[in-house]
Amino acid sequence: MLLSGGLDSATVLAIARHQGFIPCTISFRYGQRHQRELDAARRIADAAGVRDQVVLDIDLRAFGGSALTSDLPVPKGRGTDEMSVGIPSTYVPARNTIFLSLALAWAEVLDSTDIFAGMNAIDYSGYPDCRPEYIAAFERMANLATKAGVEGTRPLKIHTPLIAWSKAEIIRRGLSLGVDYGLTHSCYDPDLTTGAACGECDSCQLRLKGFAENGISDPVPYRVRSPRG
Amino acid sequence: MLLSGGLDSATVLAIARHQGFIPCTISFRYGQRHQRELDAARRIADAAGVRDQVVLDIDLRAFGGSALTSDLPVPKGRGTDEMSVGIPSTYVPARNTIFLSLALAWAEVLDSTDIFAGMNAIDYSGYPDCRPEYIAAFERMANLATKAGVEGTRPLKIHTPLIAWSKAEIIRRGLSLGVDYGLTHSCYDPDLTTGAACGECDSCQLRLKGFAENGISDPVPYRVRSPRG
Repeated sequence: MLLSGGLDSATVLAIARHQGFIPCTISFRYGQRHQRELDAARRIADAAGVRDQVVLDIDLRAFGGSALTSDLPVPKGRGTDEMSVGIPSTYVPARNTIFLSLALAWAEVLDSTDIFAGMNAIDYSGYPDCRPEYIAAFERMANLATKAGVEGTRPLKIHTPLIAWSKAEIIRRGLSLGVDYGLTHSCYDPDLTTGAACGECDSCQLRLKGFAENGISDPVPYRVRSPRG
Repeated sequence: MLLSGGLDSATVLAIARHQGFIPCTISFRYGQRHQRELDAARRIADAAGVRDQVVLDIDLRAFGGSALTSDLPVPKGRGTDEMSVGIPSTYVPARNTIFLSLALAWAEVLDSTDIFAGMNAIDYSGYPDCRPEYIAAFERMANLATKAGVEGTRPLKIHTPLIAWSKAEIIRRGLSLGVDYGLTHSCYDPDLTTGAACGECDSCQLRLKGFAENGISDPVPYRVRSPRG
């Protein structure tokens, strides 16, 4: 499964385990502005007792083109309504396709036919590669790409259990499964010294709103406590 | 376009230029046993005057599982009939999917809607990710994955001009377009000192047969001159 270290993938990990899978996690060092995400991924996987954890280096900065991997400013304080319009500058070209392709390679080596990922079409409606029709097309391609497709064994399945859930629903499900969201990291622009979240980027706003709708506080520290929190 | 440094991708580069495209090339340092391929890719791109050349590091050895990226023996002297049966140990899990996904990311940054690649379903019939139905599924997925798919601009096209050609046909076409095959490298197991090809691995045998069928000699040096050459 793809493990970013964020709230969504931490929830997916708990769901996969609850369904009886023994997850192996893959995370990427892809030229993010900071390494907090990867630290969080390791903490989350360790807490869940994941034995096979891979961190793959892949420098997407070679291509440029996104606020998450270059020096473009991260959008702040847009409000969650504004986020759903158009493709945000934090969209990394073909990122989910690259990540799922690498997970596919590892799944084939592991003889696994199940890939879990935290794509979500509600909060990230501006990202083309978070839509259900994209996931279905990737799954179809993946079944033609691999030995399973030739040898006619059990078909590969891309599981995206969060795809139609709001952030509040994701958090509710995760809490019911015992996820410790204090281990997660979502902010696009954290304080580089303390790791505190900014509270203002799209990711922080969605997260704070999700906790607020559940009537609880987000356990991670914020640099500027948003009024929404 | 994907440029491996082999005979096929050198031919694709010439075809793309002949069709009026201004190619940008992407090659991968993916844990190959040797760097000869990448040296050849640079020579080929330089000879064609390619300005934008990217070499991306991506260590597929993290996954294991293939003779081309680990210490499994490279199959030798199988004969070209035997090659077309089953999936060979030199198959790298999901390799073409990973490479095309990375090309897709770069294409999106470059605002290009055309990706060229040298997949071939004749010589590599044992590789699931060289089949036309796989390429079609990738193209469909790619159009859903990217901004083009959301914004409804010109759809992305995956060009695989060699897909139905024999090696002899590929070489004939390349020669007619002035490709210098002396710049290319195909061998899976070259002499690490001289770079001479082994003449016995699947890739060498296919290549030697292709030149022989055109009634000419392969311009690259061989360590052991195969009787087929």
